[in-house]
Order: sequence, then C-alpha cells, then structure tokens
Amino acid sequence: MTRTVIESKTKTVTIGFDEPFCVIGERINPTGRKKLAAELEAGDFSTVEKDALEQVACGAMVLDINAGVVYNSNPNPNETEPPLMTKMIQLVQGLTDTPLCIDSSVPAALEAGLAAAEGRPLLNSVTGEEDRLELVLPLVKKYNVPVVAISNDDTGISEDPDVRFAVAKKIVERAADFGIPAYDIVVDPLVMPVGAMATAGQQVFALVRRLREELGVNTTCGASNISFGLPNRHGINAAFLPMAIGAGMTSAIMNPVRQVEMEAIKAANMLMNHDANGSAWIHFSKVLEATKEGATFAEAAQAAQAAGGARGGRRGGRRRG
Amino acid sequence: MTRTVIESKTKTVTIGFDEPFCVIGERINPTGRKKLAAELEAGDFSTVEKDALEQVACGAMVLDINAGVVYNSNPNPNETEPPLMTKMIQLVQGLTDTPLCIDSSVPAALEAGLAAAEGRPLLNSVTGEEDRLELVLPLVKKYNVPVVAISNDDTGISEDPDVRFAVAKKIVERAADFGIPAYDIVVDPLVMPVGAMATAGQQVFALVRRLREELGVNTTCGASNISFGLPNRHGINAAFLPMAIGAGMTSAIMNPVRQVEMEAIKAANMLMNHDANGSAWIHFSKVLEATKEGATFAEAAQAAQAAGGARGGRRGGRRRG
Repeated sequence: MTRTVIESKTKTVTIGFDEPFCVIGERINPTGRKKLAAELEAGDFSTVEKDALEQVACGAMVLDINAGVVYNSNPNPNETEPPLMTKMIQLVQGLTDTPLCIDSSVPAALEAGLAAAEGRPLLNSVTGEEDRLELVLPLVKKYNVPVVAISNDDTGISEDPDVRFAVAKKIVERAADFGIPAYDIVVDPLVMPVGAMATAGQQVFALVRRLREELGVNTTCGASNISFGLPNRHGINAAFLPMAIGAGMTSAIMNPVRQVEMEAIKAANMLMNHDANGSAWIHFSKVLEATKEGATFAEAAQAAQAAGGARGGRRGGRRRG
Repeated sequence: MTRTVIESKTKTVTIGFDEPFCVIGERINPTGRKKLAAELEAGDFSTVEKDALEQVACGAMVLDINAGVVYNSNPNPNETEPPLMTKMIQLVQGLTDTPLCIDSSVPAALEAGLAAAEGRPLLNSVTGEEDRLELVLPLVKKYNVPVVAISNDDTGISEDPDVRFAVAKKIVERAADFGIPAYDIVVDPLVMPVGAMATAGQQVFALVRRLREELGVNTTCGASNISFGLPNRHGINAAFLPMAIGAGMTSAIMNPVRQVEMEAIKAANMLMNHDANGSAWIHFSKVLEATKEGATFAEAAQAAQAAGGARGGRRGGRRRG
C-alpha cells in the first residue's frame, strides 16, 4: 500500500490510496499576486498569516509555501528567495501544526526551506529535466522527505500522455538510483485546460490509473488548470475533482477557501468510503448551513473550528501536541 | 459500440459510451406526490404539462411517464392505470418531441403506453423476477423497444454487488432468448444510500465498469438514492454523478430541474470529451448567469430555450421536424 507520510513537528498527514483526498493549500504564493509580493518585499507577513489560518480552517491538510518574489530592490531570486523562504516557514509553523510543502524553482530556496521546516515536509518539486534531477534528488535523499514529481522534461510539456507517463517513470527510476522509494514520490501528471484540449480530462483520469497501477505512486495536480479560459470555472473544477478522485488521484494543490471545490472533495471522500460514518460530511454540511446565514465559507469554517468542530487531523483542524 | 436508440415521432436520443450522459426526467410520477395524484384523479393535467416543459428546458433528454395513481374512487390500478398512461402519453407527446420512458409496475399500463407512444420509447422496467421476465420481455420484443433492467429478483435486492451483477446477467441472457440484443437493455445496478452503506458509491462504480466491460450494456440509476438520509443531498448527488460518469454510467433517472446536479453533469460531459468545443457548457453557463439575477433555474432555462438557446437534441431542446 502506497503511503506518503508528511509531518510537521507534531502532526502527521498521509497521502494514500485508502486515505481521504489530501488538500494542499496553494494560497501562500506570491506568483500572480502583486499585492502579496509587494507586502513580502516590505516585510509585511499579515496576508501570509491570514492565508495560513484560513486555509487550515477550510480544510487544507498541508500548506504549500512559495517565496518566489522578484524583489524590485534585488532581481536575483537566488539571493532573495532562500532567506524569505526560511522566514515564511518559521512564521507559518509558529501559527499552525499543519505540515508544509516547500515550493520553489530555486534549489537554494528548497534547501533553506528544508533546513527551516520541522518534521517531514513535502518538497515541491522535481521535474524530469536533467539539471533538476541532479540538484533536487540529492536534497530529497539528504533530508529524507517526499517530493512532488512533475511530468515535464528538457523537451518541455508533452501533449502526449504516454510521453508524460514516460517522464514520470524516468523520475521514479532516477529516484530509485538515489535510494528514494516510489512511495515518497507524488507524481503530477500535468493537467491541461479542457477548453484548449478536449481530451484533457480523459488524459488525466487514464494517467492517474496508470501511475497508480504501474508505478504504485500517489498523484497530485494543479486542479484549477483544467478549467482555464472557461466560464463558471468552479463548476468544472467541482466535477473534475470527484472524477479524478474516482480515477485514483490522491491529492491536489488547490485553493481550499473555495467552498464549491471543497464540497465536491468532501462528498467524493464519502463516496470512496474514506469518511467513516459520514462524520466529516455532516460537519462540513453544518459549515455550509452557516454560509446560508451570510457568513463567507472562510468565516464559517473558522467559526466552526473555534467552536471545536474541526477535531481531527483529517479535517485539517489544529491538534495540540 | 453499445448504442441504445430511443425515439419520439421526430427526434432520436442515443444512450451510448461515446454520447453525452442521458438525463431521463423523473418528475412526471405521482408516487410520493399527493397533490399530483389528486390532480390526476380529478382529470387535471396542468402539473404534468408544467413538469414536461420545465424538464425539457432544463435538459431532460427523455421524459419518464408514470401513471401509478391509486384512485380513491377505484383502488385497482389494473383498471385505472392503463387508460391514465394512455392519456398522459398522448398529452406529453403533444407538448414536446422529447422521447418518452414508459414507467409502470402494471404490465397492462406498460402495454397501453407502448400502444400510445409514437416512435421508440424506453420501457421502464423489467427485473430479474420470474413473473416480470415472462410478462415484460415479450412486450419488449413485440414492440421492438429498449428496456430498463433492474438488478433485483425474487429474492429481493441483494446488498452483495456480485449478486446484483448476476441478476443483470440473467436478465440479459433471458432477453437474448427472446431475440432482444444487449444494446437494448439499460441496466440499473441499484444505488444504495451511502449514509447507510459506506461502500455504496464504490459498489456502483465497480458494477458500472463490469456491466460495461463484461455485458456491453448501457447503465442507468435513480441517482438521488445515493444521498438518502444525509444533509445537503445535492452536494452528494453532484459529486456522485461525475464519478459515476467517469466510471462509465451512461444515463440516470433524475430531476433535471435541479441546477447543481445538472451543472455537474454538463461539466462531466465536457471532461469526458462529449461536449465538442464546450458549446453546451458555455450555453449552460449563460443560463446560470441568469439565475444570479434572480430567476430560478427552470425560469432561466425556459427563457434561454425561448430565445433559441437550446438548439440541439443533445441539450434536450425542441426540434421542429
């Protein structure tokens, strides 16, 4: 049984075929968020704090931390990103015991994150590109952490799912050369926008089944890519996630503050028999009831959490060690 | 390729592995609707008319017609149901060219419906019970129509999915003895409430795959059964339908006037590459936009239809022959 274990100092989350779907909160990332980027350069971490607490209350089981700001004062991320990553990780793990996912394309920032994070964070990411394999896999081995493997290589992102599968297989094999087991690799098969490629959904579902059956790995994706460019994106996302879960996808990097998508995941967990007695669904339904009285989803989720409603690690609630 | 062809006088709907999911509108059924039952006994068909037009506007591709009223004035449905079925079918096919599904547990009502319906209606239903097989299969053969096959037999409904599969297989084999091909049988594997049976979702997904791969048949279900007894039922239904579609389910008997479920199906069609260029999704998104301005889903769908928005048979719109 494939189990990818991610830990903070006091809390363990397992990504696995027999586990509830693992929601990795994507919000703490300045990419495409100009206001957050400016705040970070100015040393203001209030949005990071808010995003951390909101995402956990809404059901994030792991928090992605990306410090990829290009400073106006210094355009070299190799200099600026590692210390910012350290700072953000220290801050977030002081606020919550939710395990972290260290997200960077700068190897020095990945290593700074690994040094700062307590427990066993998820590393995000390695690709099939030769220089990335040579830089990142030694870090994965050295720190004994799981890693997200993205199915592109030096030729770019292939539209052919067989090529993307082959890239994933290559990463798993190269990792094995370093002594890294397949259960510590979480493959992102890459989700194309279905509005641009009509077979995008079917590609992902078929790839997830193959990755699981042939390589025995857990899987993840940037779920909202599927709906890029289409109207009513939440509606597409909310059908895609249950279908991906039914096909065997075990995690996603996504925005947990979106009610519609989280509702779809909670329902899918129950339909996969990963919600004993429906207790998580019933709890979630109470949060939704509160939104009908005017609260936002994040407000209702935080109020439920404060009232002790989010009791268990599986729901992303806080646990005092 | 399994194709179940259902026709009105002028319109064809195909249930198939490579077709958009077939929504069979369940509303025209007095079971559990006391007001409708009283209206029908009094000869008032205004609700039937309203339900027919609303369901078609909202996306029903086939309309189920059930005349199962127990009259206060005459408690014998063998006497009252056949003429009422005839009347209801004549009425509905005068209002819409959407193909019909003739739904009764009274064989004489099934035959009255078959005699009254133009084109090639779907018959609902036969079970694995011996007396039903002997009564219904000759009608299916005589009228050359497709039939819904429900996976229970003289021993009742089994909680064991292998037994339900065996019942479906028996019906397909018995039908073959009558010269009825498998592509004219739409199997309902029976959906249990997931709140009462935690494996209910997984049972259905596995059964649908087996029915498709081993028997080559199309499938249907009473979709809302899955959420019976749970809070926020629409949320469960809206995850169940895409998951069932991903597993290969090709139709459902359901309420198409429910926006959340229809949105999930439209999105799933696109993710299965059964919505060329996303045109049905884009059209549906425009209907949803109108609901944000205060219209109900049925009102918005009917307005879009009147404006010529529902153009093709696949969206359940009316086509003038």
